[in-house]
Amino acid sequence: MDQTMQEAYDLDRQYVLHSWSVQGKLSPKVISKGEGIYFWDGEGNRYADFASQLVNLNLGHNHPKVVEAIKKQADDMCFIGPQFVAPSRSRLAKKIIDLLPDSFGKCFFTVGGADANENAMKIARACTGKQKIITRYRSYHGATYGAISLTGDPRRPPVEPGVPGIVRVFDPYCYRCSFGLTYPECGLRCAESVREVIMYENPDTVAAVFFESVTGSNGIFVPPAGYMERIEAICRELGILLVCDEVMTGFGRTGTMFGFQNFDITPDIVTMAKGVNSGYIPLGVVAVSSKLAKYFDENMLYCGLTYSGHPIACAAALGNLEAMEEDKLVDNSSAMGALFKAELEKLAKKHAYIGDVRGIGLFTCLEMVKDRESREPLTPWNGPAGPMAHVSKALLDNGIAAYIRWNYIFLTPPIIINETELMDAVARIDAALTQAEPAIAQEVP
Amino acid sequence: MDQTMQEAYDLDRQYVLHSWSVQGKLSPKVISKGEGIYFWDGEGNRYADFASQLVNLNLGHNHPKVVEAIKKQADDMCFIGPQFVAPSRSRLAKKIIDLLPDSFGKCFFTVGGADANENAMKIARACTGKQKIITRYRSYHGATYGAISLTGDPRRPPVEPGVPGIVRVFDPYCYRCSFGLTYPECGLRCAESVREVIMYENPDTVAAVFFESVTGSNGIFVPPAGYMERIEAICRELGILLVCDEVMTGFGRTGTMFGFQNFDITPDIVTMAKGVNSGYIPLGVVAVSSKLAKYFDENMLYCGLTYSGHPIACAAALGNLEAMEEDKLVDNSSAMGALFKAELEKLAKKHAYIGDVRGIGLFTCLEMVKDRESREPLTPWNGPAGPMAHVSKALLDNGIAAYIRWNYIFLTPPIIINETELMDAVARIDAALTQAEPAIAQEVP
Repeated sequence: MDQTMQEAYDLDRQYVLHSWSVQGKLSPKVISKGEGIYFWDGEGNRYADFASQLVNLNLGHNHPKVVEAIKKQADDMCFIGPQFVAPSRSRLAKKIIDLLPDSFGKCFFTVGGADANENAMKIARACTGKQKIITRYRSYHGATYGAISLTGDPRRPPVEPGVPGIVRVFDPYCYRCSFGLTYPECGLRCAESVREVIMYENPDTVAAVFFESVTGSNGIFVPPAGYMERIEAICRELGILLVCDEVMTGFGRTGTMFGFQNFDITPDIVTMAKGVNSGYIPLGVVAVSSKLAKYFDENMLYCGLTYSGHPIACAAALGNLEAMEEDKLVDNSSAMGALFKAELEKLAKKHAYIGDVRGIGLFTCLEMVKDRESREPLTPWNGPAGPMAHVSKALLDNGIAAYIRWNYIFLTPPIIINETELMDAVARIDAALTQAEPAIAQEVP
Repeated sequence: MDQTMQEAYDLDRQYVLHSWSVQGKLSPKVISKGEGIYFWDGEGNRYADFASQLVNLNLGHNHPKVVEAIKKQADDMCFIGPQFVAPSRSRLAKKIIDLLPDSFGKCFFTVGGADANENAMKIARACTGKQKIITRYRSYHGATYGAISLTGDPRRPPVEPGVPGIVRVFDPYCYRCSFGLTYPECGLRCAESVREVIMYENPDTVAAVFFESVTGSNGIFVPPAGYMERIEAICRELGILLVCDEVMTGFGRTGTMFGFQNFDITPDIVTMAKGVNSGYIPLGVVAVSSKLAKYFDENMLYCGLTYSGHPIACAAALGNLEAMEEDKLVDNSSAMGALFKAELEKLAKKHAYIGDVRGIGLFTCLEMVKDRESREPLTPWNGPAGPMAHVSKALLDNGIAAYIRWNYIFLTPPIIINETELMDAVARIDAALTQAEPAIAQEVP
């Protein structure tokens, strides 16, 4: 590493606490450069960014259109408080409402996904006068206290007690059904179970069902056909709001503009962040139906942070959306996603530790198992890396940066990816799995 | 308004939900331009920004040094996830630790002040294994669920239930003492009361005392001499951490780098945001002592958001700190603050509705009363604007944008302000009060 990179590393180790980590075990990579789907570490190694950093870099590294939008707004005006009208914020609000079903009316802007979800919860509670929120166990909605309370993920319990009033249900995780059933014979028991829980809780106390439209960092579960439609019908039947968390799935990630558009549903509230401007500047959005927005014409909205709807972030989002339209990136995500899934299915035929290939658009995941028959995970849920450490290392050795968690390999590249880049990455993933297999075999009898 | 500004306004009213507001009652100003301590609305009117937007714009509007830092980092690299080493983040961490007492060791970066406070709470709970946090009634720590739970401010109850485990105590509000006493004869009863409450709660269950070093948006209460030192002594005696929320008071606002440096104390955790980069890009910081940092060498830190320690935000903070050093802005805040307070005290002699003038550095407040003897507020706490509406209007008419809440006029200009600008503003505040008085007199018998 050159001196600047070495200095950055040394200062980081001495002065920076890293998120979600035991600090003593870390040796984080320095990132020196990024361009398109690639980034380079301090030693000059190139990686295809198949994590899109934290599934936010939908337009890849340093997209010129977004960089220009940031620089222009910084020159014009860096900060306007949320109490005023900021031109970039106004224009973005209209853009976003135009992307949503006709029933949507207004946007409340936030700083990121966590506070978007928190504010969606506050809005749902305020508008309905009810407290309980139904969420799923295998879910993640953010790390602030309200958002982590919505979450089911094992990152929640260590920071409890959280906010009361959250009721958690089982997931549409067909590969490991919590009901021990098989689709479609199950009759969507997981959806019916949501109704059963709401009845026990009493629908008059339930404000909202609050789901990721496609579960993200808990394993990418694409709901089976009919599931989301059934959830919506239950909400309508029982007078409960439907909130879709689109923080990861929004802005082309799943091959549609928003994840919920893969289904025949119309939520009441949609939360967004990440892909809204590829995370170039912190931003989140809570889009609400006109009906809900109207409630706040005469009632106080008890929400807001200093940096909510930051003007530079909104300008970046406008640049981001323009690039998405010009380059037809939603279509690209759909086409590249289909190709990628087909290629991953070919890899699954070759590599026996791949238990399941799933995904939609460029939101894909390989679930690794010791044995395809037993489906025993290659490393246990919420357990240590175990043999998965060989997979992580081999992917990096082959120039692929992916997010690995338990026995899941998340593969979520920037949606600007082209076929050449994608096929190159497939070959590298193939090589990485081949490289890792002997070491895995030594640990897995 | 020209067409662009009119369009921005119309789109805002149609599509944007504003924070902390009844939407139907709003007609927010469009902001078209900002420079130094001034901004201009859509109709070309100039305002001296005596709110620094939301007390974040310490360096005023579009400081060239910070703008350049943003543009440079945007060109270099817009986003690096918190799992990696980002050179701007590393350098900023060292800078901040160097500004703090020797006992400080590491920084955890966040997206803003609210999540900085939430993470400080998580860190305090994790390191001590204890749950309860002592906060004050007249306090504000942010709007996310954990931060609003820490808060005492009346914006909290409408979004409760919040996070359990918060115990609230009375404030060092000498002008309206909750104990009915007078300083110094009181013997700092408000501080002793904190000890009494901790004893009832049992010190073995209390993780931290969590105070703004100088209370901000609840009325700017500069603690009387000895108060903070006594609080620190109680913490040390009972084995409890001391957390100082420096979100508003940090980075020169009070005439010192941090608000706590006005007292002879050393906190264990300090939270920051706003002034760290004047809010040009969302950023927050939790600085912790080396002793606390060490805990996470071997224990998981259950904190983190996608945009935590955003590289452009860190670069902006480095530019911000450089400008502060070069232009000796902490000294300027102290000198201008002393001049301002003296001038406001002169105004108090002239304007009978001014009940109290208080502040430190450029963190000042006028408390307005119906009558100086009775000290009856000009409008009640958490009540409607009443006669204060005339004050708001008159200040705007005279080109002063101030934050007004209940019977408080907060006067917190950018710390770059010079004597000419300050004296011009004093004359305008004087004129505004003179303008408002006849209308107030009609409502106040």
